[in-house]
Amino acid sequence: MTREKRILSGMRPSGKLHLGHLHGVLSNWKRLQDEYQCFFFVADWHALTTNYESPGGIPDFTEDMVLDWLSVGIDPDKATIFVQSDIKEHAELHLLFSMITPVSWLERNPTYKEQQQELKQKDLATYGFLGYPVLQAADILIYKAHKVPVGVDQLPHLELTREIARRFNYLYKETFPVPEPLLAEVPKLPGIDGRKMSKSYGNAIFISEEPDSVRKKVGSMVTDVERPRKQDPGDPEKRCVAFNLHKLYLPEERVREIVEDCKGARIGCVQCKRELADAVNAFLEPIRERRKALQDEQGKVQDILREGAKKARAFAISTMEEVRSALWK
Amino acid sequence: MTREKRILSGMRPSGKLHLGHLHGVLSNWKRLQDEYQCFFFVADWHALTTNYESPGGIPDFTEDMVLDWLSVGIDPDKATIFVQSDIKEHAELHLLFSMITPVSWLERNPTYKEQQQELKQKDLATYGFLGYPVLQAADILIYKAHKVPVGVDQLPHLELTREIARRFNYLYKETFPVPEPLLAEVPKLPGIDGRKMSKSYGNAIFISEEPDSVRKKVGSMVTDVERPRKQDPGDPEKRCVAFNLHKLYLPEERVREIVEDCKGARIGCVQCKRELADAVNAFLEPIRERRKALQDEQGKVQDILREGAKKARAFAISTMEEVRSALWK
Repeated sequence: MTREKRILSGMRPSGKLHLGHLHGVLSNWKRLQDEYQCFFFVADWHALTTNYESPGGIPDFTEDMVLDWLSVGIDPDKATIFVQSDIKEHAELHLLFSMITPVSWLERNPTYKEQQQELKQKDLATYGFLGYPVLQAADILIYKAHKVPVGVDQLPHLELTREIARRFNYLYKETFPVPEPLLAEVPKLPGIDGRKMSKSYGNAIFISEEPDSVRKKVGSMVTDVERPRKQDPGDPEKRCVAFNLHKLYLPEERVREIVEDCKGARIGCVQCKRELADAVNAFLEPIRERRKALQDEQGKVQDILREGAKKARAFAISTMEEVRSALWK
Repeated sequence: MTREKRILSGMRPSGKLHLGHLHGVLSNWKRLQDEYQCFFFVADWHALTTNYESPGGIPDFTEDMVLDWLSVGIDPDKATIFVQSDIKEHAELHLLFSMITPVSWLERNPTYKEQQQELKQKDLATYGFLGYPVLQAADILIYKAHKVPVGVDQLPHLELTREIARRFNYLYKETFPVPEPLLAEVPKLPGIDGRKMSKSYGNAIFISEEPDSVRKKVGSMVTDVERPRKQDPGDPEKRCVAFNLHKLYLPEERVREIVEDCKGARIGCVQCKRELADAVNAFLEPIRERRKALQDEQGKVQDILREGAKKARAFAISTMEEVRSALWK
């Protein structure tokens, strides 16, 4: 392995992913897998922290999500792709870390109270929910990750992982690198209604969306509200929700033309969104094809996850041997 | 296996055990191993909840303790004897239970605040210390134990295990028997100074104590303080610490005679304790011999623990398969 530094990143199994995930996380992963030794995992145990009451859908969500990873180009020959619950060593390290983690560190975690407030309909006052940053620390440190891609809002969690790594190294033996955040600039992609793209808002365009459906969804996107008629000049950079996608899916030059034509009232929104839908479809077409090919190969995703688990497990087992010898001796 | 009901019981690795353990726990285990399918384990992960800062002695403590178990007659052909940390599935089940256990159940646990008060010199405000009843629930339920031998003070913990079992069964699928307490009447054995026998008080007579040392320790035991001279009549049932051991180690008839002779000032304390020491030594002699024989067989204890772990693991793996299928489907 020439790529010396390791990266760990995971996603909760949430089923089919949308363009927000693609441009926010997956395109980042695609770049990282060429530069680092990457471990990408399905955080199914984490999903239980907020979904313990109805975990039944998680296996299908996992399959759907990994299909999306693979079809956009996350490559099992480059990165290690696996499901968290396949690697029991995470649970062991989580247990050991629980012994050295003060409760106060967890209560301080800003998202703890926040999420309890936000998801009021759920009973989140569980021991596991309080401790999920400990599980996260185990996920990261068991692969001795050097860097972890995070958004700014996740920095406090990573700081906790760093504190746990330092504490273990101090109490027992220098074992874990203290991981650095890899802050990625993530474009906030709006959904078709202008709010942040999110499955739960029902405003998402999925990576696996069929062409007709893409056309319909793009066609229904909000454009410049101060341009009710084609003859009115628009200002796409300020007021058009669809324009966020134009910038991603059309060539730069064409984007500049559209801005001019919209400002000069020379192009209508319907036509403009049709062009956008075609571009999105052109972009998604090879992805959809790969996805279908993968789906047609019976058991392919499971095979890839099994192979990934083998590699991840070998690494995790070797870390745990070090951990145990640091701890008990 | 004709013994249908299962029992789970464990001890933290505390090194050499004393007569208090023998008459409090081990003699009970010896009886139980004939009547039930018993799982007896060394709770080394639990030891971390209060000893995470210096866990180095735990492996030796484990070896010493298991030597004592075996030499008093805990039989690996009858009971499954193993070390907790050898069975990673406990950690997995602990993690899964953490997701369904309200923090309030743990904060309510009477010993949580109590122990924090008692062991003030230690920093016990850790996540793992708060959650050790969850680990305990995993220990018990992974073997689907029907009964758990407990003292009255441990009833609240077992109640928590019972609540977790019920909650899992309710949320997912009937999987765990709700374990019953097996209240054992445990004689509180005083140490040589009259306080409860305890290693940390330095007043214990160990199971592996050498004959000379037994004689010295028994000889120094407090007798009836209101009987300064041999001519004074004593009242051993009320005031003699050593007499607690007489009742355990001398034949009933001889005990009755001693009571009469003491009350009649016909026997002196020195002589009386010499007789007691001889009886204790006669009792311990075959135990010491077995212990030495076991110690002389290089690797014997480790072999027994490895075999026990194999049996325990097979059971735990099969439970976890059920648990996972109940959870994810």
